[in-house]
Amino acid sequence: MSGNTFGKIFKITTFGESHGSALGGIIDGVPAGIKIDQTKIQAALDRRKPGQSAGGQANASVTARKESDKIEILSGVFEEKSEGTSIGFIIRNESQHSKDYSNLANTFRPGHADLSYFLKYGFRDYRGGGRSSGRETAVRVAAGEVARQVLEHFCPQIKITAYTQRAAGISIQKTDFSQIEQNALRAPDNYAAAKMNEKIEELRKNGDSAGGIIACRVTGLPAGLGECVFDKLDALLAHAILSIGAVKGIEFGAGFEAADLTGSTNNDIMRANSDGSKVEFLTNNAGGILGGISNGNEIFFRVAVKPVPSIFKEQQTVSIDENGKFHNENLKIEGRHDVCLCPRIVPVIEAMTAVTLCDLFLQNQAGRI
Amino acid sequence: MSGNTFGKIFKITTFGESHGSALGGIIDGVPAGIKIDQTKIQAALDRRKPGQSAGGQANASVTARKESDKIEILSGVFEEKSEGTSIGFIIRNESQHSKDYSNLANTFRPGHADLSYFLKYGFRDYRGGGRSSGRETAVRVAAGEVARQVLEHFCPQIKITAYTQRAAGISIQKTDFSQIEQNALRAPDNYAAAKMNEKIEELRKNGDSAGGIIACRVTGLPAGLGECVFDKLDALLAHAILSIGAVKGIEFGAGFEAADLTGSTNNDIMRANSDGSKVEFLTNNAGGILGGISNGNEIFFRVAVKPVPSIFKEQQTVSIDENGKFHNENLKIEGRHDVCLCPRIVPVIEAMTAVTLCDLFLQNQAGRI
Amino acid sequence: MSGNTFGKIFKITTFGESHGSALGGIIDGVPAGIKIDQTKIQAALDRRKPGQSAGGQANASVTARKESDKIEILSGVFEEKSEGTSIGFIIRNESQHSKDYSNLANTFRPGHADLSYFLKYGFRDYRGGGRSSGRETAVRVAAGEVARQVLEHFCPQIKITAYTQRAAGISIQKTDFSQIEQNALRAPDNYAAAKMNEKIEELRKNGDSAGGIIACRVTGLPAGLGECVFDKLDALLAHAILSIGAVKGIEFGAGFEAADLTGSTNNDIMRANSDGSKVEFLTNNAGGILGGISNGNEIFFRVAVKPVPSIFKEQQTVSIDENGKFHNENLKIEGRHDVCLCPRIVPVIEAMTAVTLCDLFLQNQAGRI
Amino acid sequence: MSGNTFGKIFKITTFGESHGSALGGIIDGVPAGIKIDQTKIQAALDRRKPGQSAGGQANASVTARKESDKIEILSGVFEEKSEGTSIGFIIRNESQHSKDYSNLANTFRPGHADLSYFLKYGFRDYRGGGRSSGRETAVRVAAGEVARQVLEHFCPQIKITAYTQRAAGISIQKTDFSQIEQNALRAPDNYAAAKMNEKIEELRKNGDSAGGIIACRVTGLPAGLGECVFDKLDALLAHAILSIGAVKGIEFGAGFEAADLTGSTNNDIMRANSDGSKVEFLTNNAGGILGGISNGNEIFFRVAVKPVPSIFKEQQTVSIDENGKFHNENLKIEGRHDVCLCPRIVPVIEAMTAVTLCDLFLQNQAGRI
Repeated sequence: MSGNTFGKIFKITTFGESHGSALGGIIDGVPAGIKIDQTKIQAALDRRKPGQSAGGQANASVTARKESDKIEILSGVFEEKSEGTSIGFIIRNESQHSKDYSNLANTFRPGHADLSYFLKYGFRDYRGGGRSSGRETAVRVAAGEVARQVLEHFCPQIKITAYTQRAAGISIQKTDFSQIEQNALRAPDNYAAAKMNEKIEELRKNGDSAGGIIACRVTGLPAGLGECVFDKLDALLAHAILSIGAVKGIEFGAGFEAADLTGSTNNDIMRANSDGSKVEFLTNNAGGILGGISNGNEIFFRVAVKPVPSIFKEQQTVSIDENGKFHNENLKIEGRHDVCLCPRIVPVIEAMTAVTLCDLFLQNQAGRI
Repeated sequence: MSGNTFGKIFKITTFGESHGSALGGIIDGVPAGIKIDQTKIQAALDRRKPGQSAGGQANASVTARKESDKIEILSGVFEEKSEGTSIGFIIRNESQHSKDYSNLANTFRPGHADLSYFLKYGFRDYRGGGRSSGRETAVRVAAGEVARQVLEHFCPQIKITAYTQRAAGISIQKTDFSQIEQNALRAPDNYAAAKMNEKIEELRKNGDSAGGIIACRVTGLPAGLGECVFDKLDALLAHAILSIGAVKGIEFGAGFEAADLTGSTNNDIMRANSDGSKVEFLTNNAGGILGGISNGNEIFFRVAVKPVPSIFKEQQTVSIDENGKFHNENLKIEGRHDVCLCPRIVPVIEAMTAVTLCDLFLQNQAGRI
Repeated sequence: MSGNTFGKIFKITTFGESHGSALGGIIDGVPAGIKIDQTKIQAALDRRKPGQSAGGQANASVTARKESDKIEILSGVFEEKSEGTSIGFIIRNESQHSKDYSNLANTFRPGHADLSYFLKYGFRDYRGGGRSSGRETAVRVAAGEVARQVLEHFCPQIKITAYTQRAAGISIQKTDFSQIEQNALRAPDNYAAAKMNEKIEELRKNGDSAGGIIACRVTGLPAGLGECVFDKLDALLAHAILSIGAVKGIEFGAGFEAADLTGSTNNDIMRANSDGSKVEFLTNNAGGILGGISNGNEIFFRVAVKPVPSIFKEQQTVSIDENGKFHNENLKIEGRHDVCLCPRIVPVIEAMTAVTLCDLFLQNQAGRI
Repeated sequence: MSGNTFGKIFKITTFGESHGSALGGIIDGVPAGIKIDQTKIQAALDRRKPGQSAGGQANASVTARKESDKIEILSGVFEEKSEGTSIGFIIRNESQHSKDYSNLANTFRPGHADLSYFLKYGFRDYRGGGRSSGRETAVRVAAGEVARQVLEHFCPQIKITAYTQRAAGISIQKTDFSQIEQNALRAPDNYAAAKMNEKIEELRKNGDSAGGIIACRVTGLPAGLGECVFDKLDALLAHAILSIGAVKGIEFGAGFEAADLTGSTNNDIMRANSDGSKVEFLTNNAGGILGGISNGNEIFFRVAVKPVPSIFKEQQTVSIDENGKFHNENLKIEGRHDVCLCPRIVPVIEAMTAVTLCDLFLQNQAGRI
């Protein structure tokens, strides 16, 4: 119960199923008097929508589902500034094709939340994933953009950038941020993105799907964010990022590779700058976090994204009959589905990172003496 | 601020620095009338202590620091049963060698929380890491054993087992749970453990240290644990586990490998059992969690542990002078230190897993109709 | 910051200003599978609206402002049952006469939140009270009706009844629940209500307003609700009720009169019933709560409601100029306003009581062994 | 469950039964670098102890039980300054006369939490009230003194003063703060206190007890504390104060008397000061709070305290037998007990007020732009 809230001071609470009439959320804890740019919130939502990340390549191979995400802000903003009160907003679901899903009412799709929801709640909203649908991430993106604007008010130099580092088995060879929005994969390497896209197109034709790895970098973040025991910066980011559907892992800095390093190779060497006013790190195996607290270095983490579970190949699975008995079943999923989630999860990771950092920043403010 | 609490219903709040007079905690939310076995709590603490995981090998190469961890339960338990009130307990620090650390008062150890604490709080408790010391995990282990006993009351078949899967570059070749406590590494493979130990001994002689990977498996957990959006089971476990010092990553099921799989190879196939009463999974790429909710399959996750940052080689670092200026410095750390943290983190991972699962179990109870 | 949430398991989060485009809320923690009757939610909202509590008397003297409160439930309910997910809903503001308030933009109304909001937030949403307007209680009433339905699922015999006990200096002489909805005051005594109404009408003609006292009784509540230290049942009810605008005090059972009693006259005598199966109380000075936990007796508390601050007499007050200087001012408020809030607060008190009890009931469920 | 924590940023969590080995608490959220004066914490505890409030009169008539309250601070303070980490502390119970209570093991004392605890938890720690004992307020007083020191760091002019306004039916006739610690009642009127004491002595001889009313005033508090909807300043204070055992009501400013006022007499008139730099109030019917937010005026509230339920007259009550059947019983309580709780609750009310204000102050800091 009650798992629909994230954050302590900057706090978001959300609602909405994929096929209900609307999704939405409440953002609590925005300080009063901060400029809230609604155009940028809409732009963030538009960027999350399918078909928005294309550069030279056709985007069609990556994703194929249509959604419209017009936000309506209902409270908390007056004359373009935050009022200090809670910001409520909704995003209508325009096309709820419930009929598309009726054949799934009694069948549990492999790799989806269908079975676990059924076992938890005793029944199931079979309309396209219900609350477990990726559709709920639209609300996160809107809240994340508000968080980013609040952070930017305090730290104008902050920059949160996520990108596809690997997809369908192909990795980027360079990290040119200017290319991220130039290709369908949101990869900072147009050439690698083209290769990924080819591979994804091949999988799509085969009725299959792809996973990938997303990296996220935060520059311009002050040192000192994160709390000392349970609310470490990395712990909270892990909570935030693993709460995104399809994410199966996270690692900070050297991450799993650190397991094979030794202390002398893993420790990041610190150097005083020329006038002794600050400390600089020669490496970043820690990912910018020591003891759970940002150390002034770039925050860096990597996220594992599983392949889309909705595929067009016939799959073995189970259904349930009216007496509550399970039966083996062969299932062929229809409709339109993403083939690789990476480019669409990129903005969601940025959003959840912004929400987490904004909350910790405001927590730090509370403790200033 | 206020990051010393974990959980919503089963809630632990902790305190204590490595060199203060005591550590301790308060466990809130234990239902009334559950048998609390204090002997087992002490046994869990003893298991976490250095020198307790040895089998055939000498443990000395892995860890070398002495601690005594006698727990004193001060409230909430009456005639061996929980009273439904908060359980307060303390663990005294017996030897607080503050003098050992005085040479570190102005120098920031690489790989430690020294600098980030200083930048956050404006000053520093230099006595051995203060609140960031691994010493605080003793409190987690005590609370975790209470959580395990509560869980066991409701699910007698539950079993949480963590173990070292890889250390100093060497992986286990088999998973024989009966061997975990037979070797200094807490690896389920005595032969591999011996190899790891050799490698660690070599690093120790070299003044260096090792990292590793810990795996954790939970069997006997009911399906349906975890909440649908932000408090997904994997998100909460990630929060819990990443809050342990030295942990740099977590992955569930196939984890980062899932990034390279396709939907058809990653989706776990479900089958009805013979009488249709339940669903079984043929594989476990999901790690027992779908849509953030346990699906009845084994919970499986892996954790990256960085090499111990305290090494005996001379390191480049910085110090601060009385005017707040940073200076470059060469540092040689003295004293006794662990060489590889894996065997000592194993019980902490089990503890935090128990705390997380217990909390979610009680949340599920709240929602029963 | 972040004060827009109430509850721990059954948790409501709300938003909305009096003159924004909508108010709304998110209810989290409703167990899955409970029948949610939307007609009753709308009925509860309709009952809160002005002009709905009239019996024989014209209601006009009590309140005079028009609002329409159509609820739109956006999520969390599927085929008339709760899904276990968060329930989002909105209530549109239909007539936002912002122009009515422009003359108040720089003047602080006595008895209102205008000045304290300004001093807190640094600026002010002058449109009719903004977030501090009584309009936000519509959201509480909707959430309260959901709480009541959840409680009723578990305790079908539960009954929460609030009523005006005193208004404009006149008290009820009897407590006939069947008369509550028969008069404009929501008093369980039509004759006293007529007297109150006369007095209120007189005040209205005089450009003045009235306060009163509301009582609340809960029958059919199980013993054992409330937590032992900070979350005592009376403490939580006090939090919930004092969070309603215009409420200035609360007392349980004998309340302030208990201050003058002695132990021997204040202690409620307990008697075993005839077959020894339960305990009955001969009196109820405790208001059904001992040690912060319901004892099985009727819950009884009384609430002080201040007179409506918006009056039509000229009042001395202050305004602020563009340089941030305060000036003395004479103010004459215009528009339509309630004269006595009691009948409109009655449903809000019932709602907040239901929310509090529902949350504590679900907390108790979490602890069942 | 989980009701042992209060506050959001400045957060206290407590434990301890009257006859366990110790009570204690954890204070989280204290900013780093604030001077923590342990002598004053001990002094606050000493002031709460019986026999410490005597001036000219013998205190014996008011209270008669011996306790020793030595605090041991275990963490979070280093070189007399807060470290920013959680502050853990314990207070030992020195004399746990469990035998005194054995005759009460199966009998439920009237006016106590015995029955409601039994009905909640299914069994009972009969040793002197267990967690419901007034003994737990020692922990609140310690935490409250820390809160006061933190508040004082930010607002050096803040002053929280509670005092007995009425006891055993006798009210003070003047409010001379300098006399509060000069009499056994903690009344700001030595003459009235002598009268109260006479009356209490008479009741004591009669085997009976007395209630009273405590007032609390806060000066020097900045405007702007309190949140707009559920966490109004008065709502949080009500929560905090009603969580103290024996408290049966609270009212702010004119409180229940406001129910009989009209808008024109209840509204506090505001005036600009001579240079227009601030607003002053001519009256304080609002108790310093408008719309749930402090308005710069003195905070004023009154608290109803019930008579001590432990009396020496024989009382009718019930007991329970081994088969779970209730029986009527006559009970004569023995041992030493307070006759009037007012002077001992005075420091607890100050403590809980400090905790509440400190938390809201830090929340405000979080939102500064």
